[in-house]
Amino acid sequence: MIIKLKQHAARKQIDHLTDWLVRQNLRVQLSEGEFETIIGVIGDTSHVDLHGIEGLEIVDQVIRISEPFKTANRKFHPDDSAVRVGTQQVGGGAFTLIAGPCSVESPEQILEIARKVRAAGATMLRGGAFKPRTSPYDFQGLQAEGLELLKQARAETGLPIVTEIMNLNHIELFADVDVIQVGARNMQNFDLLRELGRTRQPVLIKRGLANTIKELLMSAEYVMAGGNPNVILCERGIRTFETYTRNTLDISAVPVLKELSHLPVIVDPSHACGLARHVPALALASVAAGADGLIIEVHNAPEKALSDGAQSLRPEQFEQLARRLARIREAMLP
Amino acid sequence: MIIKLKQHAARKQIDHLTDWLVRQNLRVQLSEGEFETIIGVIGDTSHVDLHGIEGLEIVDQVIRISEPFKTANRKFHPDDSAVRVGTQQVGGGAFTLIAGPCSVESPEQILEIARKVRAAGATMLRGGAFKPRTSPYDFQGLQAEGLELLKQARAETGLPIVTEIMNLNHIELFADVDVIQVGARNMQNFDLLRELGRTRQPVLIKRGLANTIKELLMSAEYVMAGGNPNVILCERGIRTFETYTRNTLDISAVPVLKELSHLPVIVDPSHACGLARHVPALALASVAAGADGLIIEVHNAPEKALSDGAQSLRPEQFEQLARRLARIREAMLP
Amino acid sequence: MIIKLKQHAARKQIDHLTDWLVRQNLRVQLSEGEFETIIGVIGDTSHVDLHGIEGLEIVDQVIRISEPFKTANRKFHPDDSAVRVGTQQVGGGAFTLIAGPCSVESPEQILEIARKVRAAGATMLRGGAFKPRTSPYDFQGLQAEGLELLKQARAETGLPIVTEIMNLNHIELFADVDVIQVGARNMQNFDLLRELGRTRQPVLIKRGLANTIKELLMSAEYVMAGGNPNVILCERGIRTFETYTRNTLDISAVPVLKELSHLPVIVDPSHACGLARHVPALALASVAAGADGLIIEVHNAPEKALSDGAQSLRPEQFEQLARRLARIREAMLP
Amino acid sequence: MIIKLKQHAARKQIDHLTDWLVRQNLRVQLSEGEFETIIGVIGDTSHVDLHGIEGLEIVDQVIRISEPFKTANRKFHPDDSAVRVGTQQVGGGAFTLIAGPCSVESPEQILEIARKVRAAGATMLRGGAFKPRTSPYDFQGLQAEGLELLKQARAETGLPIVTEIMNLNHIELFADVDVIQVGARNMQNFDLLRELGRTRQPVLIKRGLANTIKELLMSAEYVMAGGNPNVILCERGIRTFETYTRNTLDISAVPVLKELSHLPVIVDPSHACGLARHVPALALASVAAGADGLIIEVHNAPEKALSDGAQSLRPEQFEQLARRLARIREAMLP
Repeated sequence: MIIKLKQHAARKQIDHLTDWLVRQNLRVQLSEGEFETIIGVIGDTSHVDLHGIEGLEIVDQVIRISEPFKTANRKFHPDDSAVRVGTQQVGGGAFTLIAGPCSVESPEQILEIARKVRAAGATMLRGGAFKPRTSPYDFQGLQAEGLELLKQARAETGLPIVTEIMNLNHIELFADVDVIQVGARNMQNFDLLRELGRTRQPVLIKRGLANTIKELLMSAEYVMAGGNPNVILCERGIRTFETYTRNTLDISAVPVLKELSHLPVIVDPSHACGLARHVPALALASVAAGADGLIIEVHNAPEKALSDGAQSLRPEQFEQLARRLARIREAMLP
Repeated sequence: MIIKLKQHAARKQIDHLTDWLVRQNLRVQLSEGEFETIIGVIGDTSHVDLHGIEGLEIVDQVIRISEPFKTANRKFHPDDSAVRVGTQQVGGGAFTLIAGPCSVESPEQILEIARKVRAAGATMLRGGAFKPRTSPYDFQGLQAEGLELLKQARAETGLPIVTEIMNLNHIELFADVDVIQVGARNMQNFDLLRELGRTRQPVLIKRGLANTIKELLMSAEYVMAGGNPNVILCERGIRTFETYTRNTLDISAVPVLKELSHLPVIVDPSHACGLARHVPALALASVAAGADGLIIEVHNAPEKALSDGAQSLRPEQFEQLARRLARIREAMLP
Repeated sequence: MIIKLKQHAARKQIDHLTDWLVRQNLRVQLSEGEFETIIGVIGDTSHVDLHGIEGLEIVDQVIRISEPFKTANRKFHPDDSAVRVGTQQVGGGAFTLIAGPCSVESPEQILEIARKVRAAGATMLRGGAFKPRTSPYDFQGLQAEGLELLKQARAETGLPIVTEIMNLNHIELFADVDVIQVGARNMQNFDLLRELGRTRQPVLIKRGLANTIKELLMSAEYVMAGGNPNVILCERGIRTFETYTRNTLDISAVPVLKELSHLPVIVDPSHACGLARHVPALALASVAAGADGLIIEVHNAPEKALSDGAQSLRPEQFEQLARRLARIREAMLP
Repeated sequence: MIIKLKQHAARKQIDHLTDWLVRQNLRVQLSEGEFETIIGVIGDTSHVDLHGIEGLEIVDQVIRISEPFKTANRKFHPDDSAVRVGTQQVGGGAFTLIAGPCSVESPEQILEIARKVRAAGATMLRGGAFKPRTSPYDFQGLQAEGLELLKQARAETGLPIVTEIMNLNHIELFADVDVIQVGARNMQNFDLLRELGRTRQPVLIKRGLANTIKELLMSAEYVMAGGNPNVILCERGIRTFETYTRNTLDISAVPVLKELSHLPVIVDPSHACGLARHVPALALASVAAGADGLIIEVHNAPEKALSDGAQSLRPEQFEQLARRLARIREAMLP
């Protein structure tokens, strides 16, 4: 950690600060220049409150140099970690292809899609039961009934299920869900993350629309700090000035997350883009960038979709995409 | 609502769509051009699912022209609405000056600050009991104890209290809080908003870091749709590429929110800026832009602050600012 | 084009507007609703000034639905266009691999790199002679001498040269340059674009840091409107709140640009990322997304680079990347 | 400057780097920690190329702590500097109110507006002669003729004129312009800035849509490094995800620019907002934030405006705003 002091900071106050830092078991080095004085702080500063120090009158700026995330940090865990989901694993060399509708709508709908995506090569089934909708007047999902329909589809097809939780009181309801998804809007719903840290279920955390790569890792840290190591990271696009696509897929997040963390990284090209016709290009790009998997929206009849139809592929489109993905993955082998 | 069709859309599919729209009690007008065909849809489209229509093969783009928010919409409620808080009101010509520490730390701390900000002209006391922290290792607030300390300070000073809720299970705990704050990170925690719609307590909703002005109004709509009209909107800065300030205060949001909605609008210059030395300029600017109030961080000893000290004013600085604010407000009178 | 009128717009003013539109040879359709009245305008509106109409008292909002770009628009030119560069072509099925140093530094440096990148499979040589530097105190490039060194390297290796122009007075100086690059900071230097429209040389236009996909196409339109059809589009990252990478590569721009326009699209992963270690992942992703080529920084000794060393690959790294790119391109074949 | 080294950096390479730094007359301090090693560099690093160091294999990150701008830096010039324009001055306690049409359209138009804005209290006249237009098909301004009309209006009213330059070959043409404006799109047109540094005319530099506050100061530095100290900074809104307003006025830029630099700071609320009805609120806010002046679009008949009518005030609206501005300025006096 680097602390830049204001010009003319009083010696007495500087000593007061450095003494305090030393008491925190940190090593301190003072560099005094003509126009700035800098304190270099060496050691584990993850428990030190930056803002408290920034609040000091003599401090101009505090720059954290070592990452505040620990358990998610590759520095302390050099090898890729894999998350077990039933008989499968996510990460660690495996490729995970999650597909399904935005919303679960009916037994027929979810079952038909589950069968088709499995046939096309999907390894897990996604489907929204509880839907985060910007408008209180929009369809909010089939909720508990939706979860039941997903479990029936799982029983029929053997595909593990991935679905979003929006309420920390639903954790028991989700006890039998294979992968619990935390949506972008809840990435910093810290109470929810903390509760998920008490379970041992796989948690897929989507990056928030305005959250940095490091903030995503801090949210993973919340779950892991609670004792649950089974975290999967998901890049799903960030919000920028570009409006042609719904969001801007930050493809760089894939190699960067894999550099900074040992956790598996998957990409959601459907929400990133919002336009079904461009989902294949983004899916192929994500695999070429090194993603451990994809989560893709597939609908049997987009024209009837109750939500997000615009970004859903038809099963035949998904099947064709899956074939192309396989070729890219092969080309990626060492 | 405007629906732009793809080139060469089949007549049969176009008719199928227009018939469906008419069945939704909407008026439809078809405009066929050489390179595009457009369907103009007139009527209340707030219940129509855009994405469902965008999913149609023949549809290129759907543009919603009327706002999807109703109860928060000034169109349907031309006069300013005021929110009652104890004997005070927020909005409707009143000016609300909320001040206090980022976090409640001790009985002495909160009481001392409460007395000082009241003396300086604050009309309400703010203080964090439950703190949203990016890192699980940072101080999380005194929680329930913090609420008690706030109530003691209220008893002593008569200042209504404003504090943040992070968990929908805490609503009973907050039953006696005068203004419940929804933080930026929870602006789209829809389950929390829905629960708050069941109360009749004043709710102050902060704009999310990546949320548009209209999304803020949709979050207000969630609370109001539940029957709670007591919503206060708060601009607190958005996330942009500029890093000198913690966030970028979107000052334009003040006049725009007051144009689009009848709800009171206040500004939080402390979180928007993150630098105490620039808080006064932003506070004065907010009042000149037409804000109904301000929420400002004040700490008795920023150098000891456990969180966000960097953005807290000292009581004497706040007192000086309050005097300048009064002069600007006077200059704003017609 | 859709014109949304204010509530209670006077009939007389509405008629005045619709008459004016009809005089512009546009078809007009009026849709009057309870809360809004909309004018649908059909025809070529590319010459109509939106702002002029938005300025009207009765107008609430103007939404352009057809794209304002014509010659660059795929709608009017369905087939991919290819740009001829010497014996090569860019786009139209070809793959262009441009490589070279950020700055030309010496005869030995540029020649050594040219030989190595050609050996590795590069099809063109890049190198900066005139450098856009944020600081007036930084190295500004070898300028005219740099152009000469590039031409010598071309003579030796046969590689066409790609280099940036910053000043419209330099067009004669660039007469013998194979591909003239317009940098991100000059994407909307309209006088420069207009001058380049008077030549027939291939022009590679980089997307500006804050420019939309459609604005990039409008800049291409400037060059093409002048009679120069030889435009190559380049995505090089946009500026967002994420600071880990220098910019955020907008990978979606590749399929979107190819949908909206017939022009070739290449990607610059080096500037998008700013970190050499992540350039390969972004390069592979760009090809998988459908890019027609790449422009990559390669330096013989990054530790000695006078500029942008952080994002330059060493020749052996480039050679290894080129092999991987070839495998991905093969996997992309139908 | 702080240099963070990679883990396991070789001693030999570290020494090589520190020796090099010392040869640049910089003081160096090495701090070796368990997980990171940091080199603190003290002294004038404005001439040191960050990227060159970042390119080193052993370097993980370089953080510049002292600002790279010198002549514009308040640290080296604590007092406000004022720019002389005819008998007026900009900054240094004066308030500058620049008003006029987006484009000069005719002798009658510019003269009528000039008379009216002067009567309302404007101190300078603005008007576009050369217009930067996104589309090559839009009106490009009256160009040289427009400059003549501005000079006639100046002769008639005595108001100094402010107008935008887009082409470095026009500097002679602008020799008699009182304040030469560099538009947002040209903020990093470094060749243009360098040429303006050779003149001694006042230069008003608008912040680019995606440029940081510090980049704006670096562009000022380009002009000042050439020997022209007469630079005026202008905040005019940045591009963010919010689309309701054309851009997002970064009101914080006003106090921050005045903290970092001694140069005068003015605000353009018209372009920042794009909506005439919200220009007054932003203008009042800018003055309350400490701006030294405003540049506001005023048109005699917005419904006839050839460009940007949507953001232009009518003279009577401007006159009313000027009265309100005067009251706010009075309230701002110590």
